[in-house]
Amino acid sequence: MNKKKIINDPIYGFITIEHEIVFDCIQLPEFQRLRRIKQLGLTSLVYPGAQHTRFQHVIGAMHLMQTAVTSLRSKEVTISEDEEIGVLLAILLHDIGHGPFSHSLEHGILTDVSHEYISSILMERINAKMDGKLNLAIQIFENKYPRKFLHQLVSSQLDMDRLDYLRRDSFYTGVSEGTVGIERIIQMLNVKDDCLIVEQKGIFSVEKFLMARRFMYWQVYLHKTSIAADRMMLNILKRAKEIISEGKTLFASPYLYFFLSRNFTQADLQKPDVLENFCNLDDSEVISAIKVWQNSEDVTLSTLCKMLINRNLLKIEIAESPFDSATIEKRRTAVCDQIGIPKEQADYFVITGKLSNNTYSTQGDTLKIGMKDGSLKELSETSEIYNLSDDNKPTIKYFITSIK
Amino acid sequence: MNKKKIINDPIYGFITIEHEIVFDCIQLPEFQRLRRIKQLGLTSLVYPGAQHTRFQHVIGAMHLMQTAVTSLRSKEVTISEDEEIGVLLAILLHDIGHGPFSHSLEHGILTDVSHEYISSILMERINAKMDGKLNLAIQIFENKYPRKFLHQLVSSQLDMDRLDYLRRDSFYTGVSEGTVGIERIIQMLNVKDDCLIVEQKGIFSVEKFLMARRFMYWQVYLHKTSIAADRMMLNILKRAKEIISEGKTLFASPYLYFFLSRNFTQADLQKPDVLENFCNLDDSEVISAIKVWQNSEDVTLSTLCKMLINRNLLKIEIAESPFDSATIEKRRTAVCDQIGIPKEQADYFVITGKLSNNTYSTQGDTLKIGMKDGSLKELSETSEIYNLSDDNKPTIKYFITSIK
Amino acid sequence: MNKKKIINDPIYGFITIEHEIVFDCIQLPEFQRLRRIKQLGLTSLVYPGAQHTRFQHVIGAMHLMQTAVTSLRSKEVTISEDEEIGVLLAILLHDIGHGPFSHSLEHGILTDVSHEYISSILMERINAKMDGKLNLAIQIFENKYPRKFLHQLVSSQLDMDRLDYLRRDSFYTGVSEGTVGIERIIQMLNVKDDCLIVEQKGIFSVEKFLMARRFMYWQVYLHKTSIAADRMMLNILKRAKEIISEGKTLFASPYLYFFLSRNFTQADLQKPDVLENFCNLDDSEVISAIKVWQNSEDVTLSTLCKMLINRNLLKIEIAESPFDSATIEKRRTAVCDQIGIPKEQADYFVITGKLSNNTYSTQGDTLKIGMKDGSLKELSETSEIYNLSDDNKPTIKYFITSIK
Amino acid sequence: MNKKKIINDPIYGFITIEHEIVFDCIQLPEFQRLRRIKQLGLTSLVYPGAQHTRFQHVIGAMHLMQTAVTSLRSKEVTISEDEEIGVLLAILLHDIGHGPFSHSLEHGILTDVSHEYISSILMERINAKMDGKLNLAIQIFENKYPRKFLHQLVSSQLDMDRLDYLRRDSFYTGVSEGTVGIERIIQMLNVKDDCLIVEQKGIFSVEKFLMARRFMYWQVYLHKTSIAADRMMLNILKRAKEIISEGKTLFASPYLYFFLSRNFTQADLQKPDVLENFCNLDDSEVISAIKVWQNSEDVTLSTLCKMLINRNLLKIEIAESPFDSATIEKRRTAVCDQIGIPKEQADYFVITGKLSNNTYSTQGDTLKIGMKDGSLKELSETSEIYNLSDDNKPTIKYFITSIK
Repeated sequence: MNKKKIINDPIYGFITIEHEIVFDCIQLPEFQRLRRIKQLGLTSLVYPGAQHTRFQHVIGAMHLMQTAVTSLRSKEVTISEDEEIGVLLAILLHDIGHGPFSHSLEHGILTDVSHEYISSILMERINAKMDGKLNLAIQIFENKYPRKFLHQLVSSQLDMDRLDYLRRDSFYTGVSEGTVGIERIIQMLNVKDDCLIVEQKGIFSVEKFLMARRFMYWQVYLHKTSIAADRMMLNILKRAKEIISEGKTLFASPYLYFFLSRNFTQADLQKPDVLENFCNLDDSEVISAIKVWQNSEDVTLSTLCKMLINRNLLKIEIAESPFDSATIEKRRTAVCDQIGIPKEQADYFVITGKLSNNTYSTQGDTLKIGMKDGSLKELSETSEIYNLSDDNKPTIKYFITSIK
Repeated sequence: MNKKKIINDPIYGFITIEHEIVFDCIQLPEFQRLRRIKQLGLTSLVYPGAQHTRFQHVIGAMHLMQTAVTSLRSKEVTISEDEEIGVLLAILLHDIGHGPFSHSLEHGILTDVSHEYISSILMERINAKMDGKLNLAIQIFENKYPRKFLHQLVSSQLDMDRLDYLRRDSFYTGVSEGTVGIERIIQMLNVKDDCLIVEQKGIFSVEKFLMARRFMYWQVYLHKTSIAADRMMLNILKRAKEIISEGKTLFASPYLYFFLSRNFTQADLQKPDVLENFCNLDDSEVISAIKVWQNSEDVTLSTLCKMLINRNLLKIEIAESPFDSATIEKRRTAVCDQIGIPKEQADYFVITGKLSNNTYSTQGDTLKIGMKDGSLKELSETSEIYNLSDDNKPTIKYFITSIK
Repeated sequence: MNKKKIINDPIYGFITIEHEIVFDCIQLPEFQRLRRIKQLGLTSLVYPGAQHTRFQHVIGAMHLMQTAVTSLRSKEVTISEDEEIGVLLAILLHDIGHGPFSHSLEHGILTDVSHEYISSILMERINAKMDGKLNLAIQIFENKYPRKFLHQLVSSQLDMDRLDYLRRDSFYTGVSEGTVGIERIIQMLNVKDDCLIVEQKGIFSVEKFLMARRFMYWQVYLHKTSIAADRMMLNILKRAKEIISEGKTLFASPYLYFFLSRNFTQADLQKPDVLENFCNLDDSEVISAIKVWQNSEDVTLSTLCKMLINRNLLKIEIAESPFDSATIEKRRTAVCDQIGIPKEQADYFVITGKLSNNTYSTQGDTLKIGMKDGSLKELSETSEIYNLSDDNKPTIKYFITSIK
Repeated sequence: MNKKKIINDPIYGFITIEHEIVFDCIQLPEFQRLRRIKQLGLTSLVYPGAQHTRFQHVIGAMHLMQTAVTSLRSKEVTISEDEEIGVLLAILLHDIGHGPFSHSLEHGILTDVSHEYISSILMERINAKMDGKLNLAIQIFENKYPRKFLHQLVSSQLDMDRLDYLRRDSFYTGVSEGTVGIERIIQMLNVKDDCLIVEQKGIFSVEKFLMARRFMYWQVYLHKTSIAADRMMLNILKRAKEIISEGKTLFASPYLYFFLSRNFTQADLQKPDVLENFCNLDDSEVISAIKVWQNSEDVTLSTLCKMLINRNLLKIEIAESPFDSATIEKRRTAVCDQIGIPKEQADYFVITGKLSNNTYSTQGDTLKIGMKDGSLKELSETSEIYNLSDDNKPTIKYFITSIK
């Protein structure tokens, strides 16, 4: 039967869904929700093209996984059909626990609950509904399956997740320095002793990939304006929670209000009603609420909301060393004077923090290169162009925000 | 002074904002709102990549206008700096009156108020704030300026609006058949007796453009699944208005509730409070409300909302002739039986209508070709490949929706 | 064993050679010769980028064939490994009989011997050297194999040859109107009763393909300047043959001289020494000789050679009807006066002929569309955008050349 | 007047020739010759797409120069029309002295005469014909014009020559790692005190450029197979010269024979007949001759020619240190045994040498960055991602060839 579903992707063209169970998972409400969550959160305030969603990303990563499976099989790596479906579902669902605005709100609406943890819980919930059809996918996702390379394709220095998001974020932001030759890298992958390796002739492509990643960090992921916007949104949600905790009313959709009016721990996420509410959250109610909060009586809240909505963002400065307390104090005083808020609310505007670009680690799960003579080497031993040590000692920078 | 602003665009690369007043207009809250309105509404349910915003489109069209002005000047068409700024602002602001989900909601939240009309009102409002600096732009936009080609660059068979949206919609949907060689077309434009013409050597490019447009109509703008989603959203808003008019409560942000609880005529838009509320609307509160309405007690509303949110859309059939009343009646009865709603609500699910693809008209403002011998010809007289008459007699198709 | 050869292609990226025998054929001197024959002959005088070779084209077409085989198998069309190799070799070798400057010289150096005929002879010669390993490939190439779709993939309205050359010629000329969504078309192919069909959802892609072809005809293949250059080269070779037949000496490489000093019929090509000489011809000796002939004492020859080498081409006019004899005579007289040649040599400069663009025929081997309901239709019955009848009645144009 | 010439380029699209004198220079036989010289010589034996010509490269570089002039003027750098034309002509003609197969034959046909030197002589010759209209172009080319940035646009670490060739070579080889964001770099150029600088916000783009260059060196310019082919061609020409000097006859076009049968010094190039002969050389007669020489009685010559024509290249090995004399001697003996040549001819097959990738020098004409605070810094002081010191200490590798 020839009933394959096809999805049009601006980057890869036609993406074919080869397996019925994969398509069934895409149809789930939990998955369709990812259509309403932007991959790069507020980055679109800096790069207006960055409107792409988590949905697009995971579909793309799933497509790359299919390509990788086909390529590995042509090199006589045995992958059973069950393993193929397992690794496809693992990559498809690995981000299902993301909340509104992706990374931005992991610490805004919830407190210290990672999206990976929620992904695990949601995968269990879906697995229960699907009579255990996700068992193998979950094993691979959690690295409990003996053939390690399947997990490495989902999560490692060179997994399908990264390959897709670097390519996709580069494409949509228009930052062409981040373009990666994905097809080539995938063609260069191989498996040795159940571990993922890169063939020697793929070294250049891997080096290009690492450089592209470095570029993306500084030009996109750690872009200072985008950092300022992210922190503003976190502070908006924090202030909204405070106001509600003081017993005042604030407009919000019921799903958002559920989370703003209470503090949930990681354990709470296991409760069906909490999880159900989480599955109804997406970018829309956060934006909708912030627009209404522009008119709040609370000066701090209304000021931050107006600034964010009209893209009149906090000014942000970057330095090589931490800002001293005198500098910080001066900014805090200035803010209070300027907009008339009490000193204890100054930190909603004067935000300090550090940025770290730690892209490649020469420790732990490093990249192995399969040499033509059959031996394995570390990437750092074979690299010709890229200086891995530059990645290994991460650059740390410090920032402070203030009102213009 | 070298303080030009630069915007990164995935399609054109760097876009430079050459004039301070143009940048000032981009900074306005009325304009920033366009960041939160998708260019193609619900089309992303069919083409997941179609997430691009009105903001991106008008910035892109403004960039093409800049290119066109430069190209025309190099052909010794005189364009003063005031005219340049005027035509840039006219294209930049021509879509500022769009409501949530672009075209989709023109008839959902308001009744028979065109976005062009609202654009005009908003341009006046901004002009007042800006001490009349938009006077010339408004004249060009409303075709009251004597040099007609400036208006034609904003609105005609071959304007910068269409060039950008065809290219951009093709890029983001991944429908490569719609790709247009914009740079070439712009290089082939010229002005004769203050009218916009295409030079003879550009005929191929124009023919390609018209074909691309035809492809985009059938593959994107009139895609049947997308039509179904659009109509569902219109019916959702219609039903919500009915419920509110019956005195029942329904969750909505204050801005959306303002419009759902009353019926405004075109004249009402002139009132400052109505206009102010309109300027606070965007896609987010519509989506946020629909998610909440999934739990409404009203079966019709909750059913439609669940279907739309989870992309379980109405089934749509297309035919060459209108559906007969027996067929329609059969579908209506089936729906009422299936979900248990009274007969008078059947039309919320059984929607009929027609689709028309009328892309080029050989009457009115036709495309003039400047021949090498100095004469002017109609495109229809010179075309070598494309059969314009195919466009001139529009294809009409009929549709009916039902529940699967 | 993992010893696959990879070729870098600017269009498709990495091309993998999957079978040893395919690689062996690429290594043959007969095949390597295609590296030295331009795909589009003198078209590079109009489009400087059109430097691509026959070698690149057939490697590309072979790659598309591999993709088509994989796609058809995924639709449960059975293709044995022998059939796969056969169809790959058939497409790889289908152009091996091309002479210098591809089509341009088929009638210049030889007289009325088609390149398809020489391809057949050369495939037989190679087959003999290879102990019959090309038997199946030759059967498929000559449409003697029962499963017709394999031949149709090599030669039909929608074969891998055309798909590659349209895409490639468009890419290298920079004529973007000719861009074709090859991947999509291939994904839409299927087989019914051993015939190649296109699935219904691929209609748009096929229509786009037919349009692109029409564009390429008028903008590239029948470009008037390129026609002028082609005819000049044919006349140069004709004149050189005449001069040699008169017993005068003329510089040429031994391989070229072999053909210039004698007239071979189709049957002669079967003789080993004739074939061997043919296999040593490529673009280089033709260009090298023409450069030397610029200094010939024969005015006609030297004039034509200087003009071609320095790209000072004959002027060419196009008309809807044939040029009358008075016009032609006037041009002939003018040429003789201008450069001082006898009247009987005037036609070396005053060349008349006709151009015909007959791209799609609704007779014979037409394109069949596999409808969703299982029926087969003619493309002309299902086409929505493209008017096939425009192709069916070919446009004929007439040309005349003269000296500027 | 609107008579601008337009050239289609696969990379940049339409290239407009803005000035009549520029077009006149393109029309010269000396310039048209560049259509017949491949930019990358024998690299097409490794990357079959690398068929592009010197003609395409200099037209492309001229186009980038036009873009740079426009961009700099928009930043209020004054460039007079004479200076514009001068710098356009300087880049257009800077490569006019290239011989067949570009760099490959600089040392094959001539001995130690650089193409820059011949470019200078040819520019003088053209200037004489053109009544001194190239005076300013020559001054700029030879860095004798006071406004240094004009020369720097033609020749420096970041000139239009390099920008075009890196982009073009990357495009045609299909080595996407070499892709450079040219438009961005050009937009980031500025002039301070008549010196070319890069604005601070362009640092990332420059770093990407330097990396891309490094990739191109190792993947293309120093590709070992390509090195082997180059050296084989040099040895073929060297052996042909030897044979002719021994009084034996050898087929060659008169232009090639002129150079093979004599040894010219740099001073000889000044003689009109030598220069005229040089202007008639291109790739075609070299290839045409080598094909004939396959049948030479000289075993060394015929063996090398057959190998090169049929792409059966010498085997090449790379090492970190020079090969010792025992290894070399062993290879020499083996070759003589294998093909039966005297020992003194062994070095035609056993070739040793070294490869050096010295891409950026921190000494001399370094890249200056214009910081936002108005100061100038060295690129090496500001670079965030790219480790310039990696370029500064060039990697040196050693090679040896032998017969398989």
